[in-house]
Amino acid sequence: VESKDGDFKLNFRGLVQADGYYFVDDEDPNNVNGDGLVNRFIMRRVRPIFSGTLWKDIDWRIMPDFGMGAARLFDAYADLRYFRSASLAAGKFKAPISLERLQSASALTFLERGFPTQLAPNRDIGAMLHGEFDGPWETESTRSYNLYQFPEFLAYQVGIFDGTVNNGNIDSPTTDGKQVEARIFAHPFKGAGLDAVEGLGVGIGGSWGHPNDSATPTYATAGQQTMFKYASAARIDGTQYRIYPQAYWYWGPFGLIGEYAFSQAGVANQSTVNTGTGPHTVTKYSTIENDYAWNVTASYVLTGEDNTFQGVRPRHAFNPFEGKWGAWQAAARWTEIAFDSDVFRNVAKPGSSTPIYAFADPRQAVRNATNWSIGINWWLNQNVKIMADYNQTSFQGGGGVYDSKGTLTNDVVDRATEKVFDTRIQVSF
Amino acid sequence: VESKDGDFKLNFRGLVQADGYYFVDDEDPNNVNGDGLVNRFIMRRVRPIFSGTLWKDIDWRIMPDFGMGAARLFDAYADLRYFRSASLAAGKFKAPISLERLQSASALTFLERGFPTQLAPNRDIGAMLHGEFDGPWETESTRSYNLYQFPEFLAYQVGIFDGTVNNGNIDSPTTDGKQVEARIFAHPFKGAGLDAVEGLGVGIGGSWGHPNDSATPTYATAGQQTMFKYASAARIDGTQYRIYPQAYWYWGPFGLIGEYAFSQAGVANQSTVNTGTGPHTVTKYSTIENDYAWNVTASYVLTGEDNTFQGVRPRHAFNPFEGKWGAWQAAARWTEIAFDSDVFRNVAKPGSSTPIYAFADPRQAVRNATNWSIGINWWLNQNVKIMADYNQTSFQGGGGVYDSKGTLTNDVVDRATEKVFDTRIQVSF
Amino acid sequence: VESKDGDFKLNFRGLVQADGYYFVDDEDPNNVNGDGLVNRFIMRRVRPIFSGTLWKDIDWRIMPDFGMGAARLFDAYADLRYFRSASLAAGKFKAPISLERLQSASALTFLERGFPTQLAPNRDIGAMLHGEFDGPWETESTRSYNLYQFPEFLAYQVGIFDGTVNNGNIDSPTTDGKQVEARIFAHPFKGAGLDAVEGLGVGIGGSWGHPNDSATPTYATAGQQTMFKYASAARIDGTQYRIYPQAYWYWGPFGLIGEYAFSQAGVANQSTVNTGTGPHTVTKYSTIENDYAWNVTASYVLTGEDNTFQGVRPRHAFNPFEGKWGAWQAAARWTEIAFDSDVFRNVAKPGSSTPIYAFADPRQAVRNATNWSIGINWWLNQNVKIMADYNQTSFQGGGGVYDSKGTLTNDVVDRATEKVFDTRIQVSF
Repeated sequence: VESKDGDFKLNFRGLVQADGYYFVDDEDPNNVNGDGLVNRFIMRRVRPIFSGTLWKDIDWRIMPDFGMGAARLFDAYADLRYFRSASLAAGKFKAPISLERLQSASALTFLERGFPTQLAPNRDIGAMLHGEFDGPWETESTRSYNLYQFPEFLAYQVGIFDGTVNNGNIDSPTTDGKQVEARIFAHPFKGAGLDAVEGLGVGIGGSWGHPNDSATPTYATAGQQTMFKYASAARIDGTQYRIYPQAYWYWGPFGLIGEYAFSQAGVANQSTVNTGTGPHTVTKYSTIENDYAWNVTASYVLTGEDNTFQGVRPRHAFNPFEGKWGAWQAAARWTEIAFDSDVFRNVAKPGSSTPIYAFADPRQAVRNATNWSIGINWWLNQNVKIMADYNQTSFQGGGGVYDSKGTLTNDVVDRATEKVFDTRIQVSF
Repeated sequence: VESKDGDFKLNFRGLVQADGYYFVDDEDPNNVNGDGLVNRFIMRRVRPIFSGTLWKDIDWRIMPDFGMGAARLFDAYADLRYFRSASLAAGKFKAPISLERLQSASALTFLERGFPTQLAPNRDIGAMLHGEFDGPWETESTRSYNLYQFPEFLAYQVGIFDGTVNNGNIDSPTTDGKQVEARIFAHPFKGAGLDAVEGLGVGIGGSWGHPNDSATPTYATAGQQTMFKYASAARIDGTQYRIYPQAYWYWGPFGLIGEYAFSQAGVANQSTVNTGTGPHTVTKYSTIENDYAWNVTASYVLTGEDNTFQGVRPRHAFNPFEGKWGAWQAAARWTEIAFDSDVFRNVAKPGSSTPIYAFADPRQAVRNATNWSIGINWWLNQNVKIMADYNQTSFQGGGGVYDSKGTLTNDVVDRATEKVFDTRIQVSF
Repeated sequence: VESKDGDFKLNFRGLVQADGYYFVDDEDPNNVNGDGLVNRFIMRRVRPIFSGTLWKDIDWRIMPDFGMGAARLFDAYADLRYFRSASLAAGKFKAPISLERLQSASALTFLERGFPTQLAPNRDIGAMLHGEFDGPWETESTRSYNLYQFPEFLAYQVGIFDGTVNNGNIDSPTTDGKQVEARIFAHPFKGAGLDAVEGLGVGIGGSWGHPNDSATPTYATAGQQTMFKYASAARIDGTQYRIYPQAYWYWGPFGLIGEYAFSQAGVANQSTVNTGTGPHTVTKYSTIENDYAWNVTASYVLTGEDNTFQGVRPRHAFNPFEGKWGAWQAAARWTEIAFDSDVFRNVAKPGSSTPIYAFADPRQAVRNATNWSIGINWWLNQNVKIMADYNQTSFQGGGGVYDSKGTLTNDVVDRATEKVFDTRIQVSF
C-alpha cells in the first residue's frame, strides 16, 4: 500500500521455513548424545514482516519470529535516511559484522549458515550510522533496500550496541560495557565493464567492546545440536574484539562466498559475594580466549539463471502443465571452528584426581568442529524454494565416558561424527 | 488485496474470543481442588491470521495465537496445489484425525470441543498429501478453501508428522518415531437430489506411529481444569494408534455432529542412566493403554437459518434500530472419556502400605469423565457471536483425601462434579 | 482499507520505541545495587496494531507487544457501539482508572509514566459499559476513536474485571474475587467560548474489589529498577479499593497533567496446607495497607504548536534541506509514591535478634520514592519523536547492609539516589 506521492508506504511480507532433519548412524551406543539424536520436523522460521516508509525519508520495520517454539522479536527499527552517505538507524537489527549473517535468511544456500556467524551477535540493539558512496564508474545512484546497503560501490556501517552474546538475540543486556560494531564493503569493479568481476564484493567487519560479567554463548552443529557450552560460573569479562574479512563473487550462474572470523575475549570464572550494601562479583580464574572460524561456500545454478547474494530468480516459474521446471542450484561448503585450548584448562590442584574446569569442560564442549556439506536447491519460483542438504561434521574432543556405575570419568574422547540429511520447504515474499 | 489476474492474493483475517467462567457449587470443602475454582475472564483465542496465494497454485498461511497468556504459533504452512487430487502441504497445521478439531474455532457450537479431540494432537508438524474427487452427481468442481477440504464429494489427507503429544501444540519433538496420520471424508449424497441427506458427511481418521520416550499429555474438563495427568516418570513409548469414526448431518436449521475415538499407546515408566559415552533410557514398568471417548452434539437454529459446519450466517444482521435480531441457535451435547484402568496400577510390592503409581495416580487422575452441556448462541451477524453454555461433568476417581496431619492417604474418591456456566464474546472475520 | 459504504474498515498501525539508559554515579560501592546499574539499549515497545470496524457499529482491536524481550498480548477486544451513551466492550484493554495510563504510549511526555499509574492494573480482562454525552455548548457529536472516549463534554466507563495485580498485565487470574473499575471524565468548558479553559479536563477513577490469595505486584523506578517487592509468602487478600482524582489542562502550547492515587488493600502472609480432599490457604499475619502516589507534569511546545493529550503535531515536518525543524517540547515533572509503614512490620517475637518481615522487607523495599524529571522532546513529524530525559529519584529505606562475612545485618538504610539519563527514538503511526 502506498500514498500517491510515494512518500508513505506500508509493506507486508512473510517467510515460512518448514524443515526436516534425519540423522544417519546416530544409533551408535558410543554416541555422546546417548540413544540417538531426534529426527524431526520443525518450523525453523515463521516471520510476518511489517515495514514501511514515512515522510519519504524514514524507514521502519517490525519482524517477530514464531519459529522454533518461541515468539521472539528479531527486527524493530527506525532508519532516518535524510542523507545517503549518513543514515541513522536505531533499534534492534542484525549486527553489522558477519557477511553470511547479513544475507537474508530466505536467500541462504544451505539450511544453516557456516560457523563464522556463530562467533558474533545475531541481532543487537543500538544505534548505527550507515551510508553508501558512488564509485568512479557509476552515474546513477540507487536507494538500496536494506540497512546494510549492499551498495553499487562502497558502503559502511558503524554503531554502538548492547554487545549481545555470540550467536544471540537477547533483549535485556546484562552488561554495562557497550560494543562498537563496524563494517565496510565494496564492489570495487562494479560498472567497470569487466564482466567476470562485476559481482565481486570484498569487505571487513569487526567489533570492539569491554563486556563485564556478561552471559556466555553456546555453539551448535549443522544438525542444531549443542557442541560447545561454557561452565556455569564462566562469564565473558574483559576486552573483546572480532575481525571478519569477507568476500563474495557472483559471475553468471556461479557463486562463491566466504569469510574468516577471529575473536578474542576475556573469560572469567566468577562468583558473587555480598559486601557493604550489596552484591559484588569476584573473579576466581580468568583467561584470554582466542577462537577462529572460516567458511567457503560455492554454488552453481544448473538451469543457467544468475546466482546472486539475494538468491535465484527462475527464468520460468514451475508449472507442470507447461513443462516449466523453475531453477536448480547445486552447492558445496567447507566450514570449521576452533576454540582456544586454554578454555579447557584444568584448574584443580596438581595431583588432584578430579579435574575442575573453570571455563569449559572438554568432555562436553568440543575443541574443534569441521563440517562439509553438499546441497541442491530447487527454486520453483522466486517465492518458493525446496532445499536438500547433507552435512557431515567431525569433532575433536567434546565427549566423555561413564564407568559401569554411571560416574563420569576423567577421559576426554572425540564426539561421534554427526551426519545429517536435512530438507526445507520455504515460502518467502 | 489481490493482483489483477488473481494469481497473487494476500488476506488478513482475525479471531478474538473473550470468555467468562463461573463455577457453581465449587466452594464445597470436599472439592478436590480445595478452596474453590477460580471464576475468571480470559482471552481464549486472539489470532491475527495472515494468508495468501502465490503464483496461482501455492497457498500459505501464518497464524499465531496470543490468547491464554502465551504467544504461540498455531499454523504456518505452504500448500502446493497444482493437482486437485494430490496437493502437498508442508509445515505446521491441524492433525487430520478428529472431525471436531478440524472445525474452525470460530464455528464451534460450544465454547470447548468434546473429549474425543483431546485423544489426538492439536497441531502437528510434517508433510501431507491431500486431495478431493467429484462424485457421480457433481458437474462443477470447486476449489475448497482449507487444507482439509470438506469436499463436494470425497476428500482424503495422509501425511507424516512429528507425532505431537495428545491435545498438544508443540514445536520441538522429543521423539524420533514419526507418526502417519490419515483421514477420509465424504458427502455421499451431495448433489443426489435428496434434500434431507445432502448435508450428511461421514468419514474416518486415524494415526499410526511408534513414539519412544515421548512426553505425556494432560487432559482438561469443560471448565479447563486438569482432570488427568501422568506420573512424572511416565512416557509414551511403543506403538500408538488411533481410530476416529466421525460424521455430521446438517439439514436446514438442524445440525448433528459426532465422533468416537479409540486410542492405544504404550506407556513406560522410565529413568535415565549414564553408561558408555552418554545417557540411556531404562524402562522400569510398561503397559499398553486403551482409552476411548465419544461426543454427540445437536443444535437447532431457532431463527430458521441454515446450520452448517462453518457456523451460521444470519439472514439479517443485528440492528436494534431496525428491529433486526440476528440468528439464535440452541444446542445440547453429551461427551465422555474413559481411561484404561491399567494405567492406575499400583506397582508397589504386595503388602506395602504405600502405593506406587508408575503411570498415573488415581487420586489425581480421573478414570472416567462424563459431561453434558446445553448452550445458546446468538449470531449478531456473521462476524460476531455471543455464546452462553452450562456444562456439568461428573467423574470416577481422580480425588484423594488428606488426614488431619496433611498427609495424603491411600483412599481414592470421586472428584466433585464440576458445574460451570461460561460465556463468550467472539469477533471473527 | 475500507469498504465503499464505510461500514467495514481494517487498519494497520504500529509503534516502535528504542530506548537508551545511562545511569550517573552508579559505580558508588555503597550503592544498594552493588557494582552498578546496567547502562543499556532496550526495545521498550514494539507493537503491530490491528484494528477495524465491522457492520458499522462493531469495533475490534488486536495489539501484541514484542518489546522487553517478551511477546505479550496488550489489547484484544470487541466494542459494540450501537448506542453512543452505552457501548459494550469485552476483552482485554486498559483498566479505566489512571489518567496517565489511558494516555497513549506514543503520546507520553516522559519515557515512563509517573508513580500513580503503578498503583492500578495496566491491562485487565473483563466487560465494560462506556458512553459519552454532549454538553450544553456542543452542537455536533463526534464519534471518538478509543474506548476511553476523551469526550467533547462528558464520558464514563464502568466495568467488571479480573482485577489484575497492580502495574500488571496478566492473562490467568489467580483470584476468584472480581473487581469493579470505573471512571468519569469531563471537559466542563468545551465549546463555552472561554479559550483558556476549553482544554481543561477533570475526572475521577477508581476500583472496588475483594481479591483473595492474589499475587503481589512489584514497583519500579524511573530507571526501571525494582524498588518495592513483597515478601514471597505475602498475598493481596481482602477488600481493595482505589481512588484517582485526575485532571489535565491544555492551553495552546502549554500543557499540565496530574493525578493523585490512593489505594487500600488487605495484605496477608499465607501458607497452604492439605486437609480433607485438597489444599487450603491459611493466613498467618494480615494487615490493611494504605498507599498513595501523585504526579504533576508540565510541558511547553517551544515551537508554538498546540499541546494535546494525544501529543504534538508539528506545523512543518523536519526537512534539513528546506530548513524545517519539526516541533520542540520542554517538560518537567514531580512524582512521589509512599508505602504504608505497616507493611514493613517486624513480626518476630520481642527480643528476637533476627527480624521477620511478613509482608515486605524494608532492606529490599523502599518506604518512599520521590522523583523529579526534566525532558526535551523533538517531534520530527507527527510520526517520529526523539526524547531525552533526566530523572533523579531519592528514596527512604529500601537498602540493607552486609557485614564482613557477607551476612545481611538488621540495619535499614536509604537506597542510593538513582540518577538516570535516558533517550528514546519512537516511530508511531
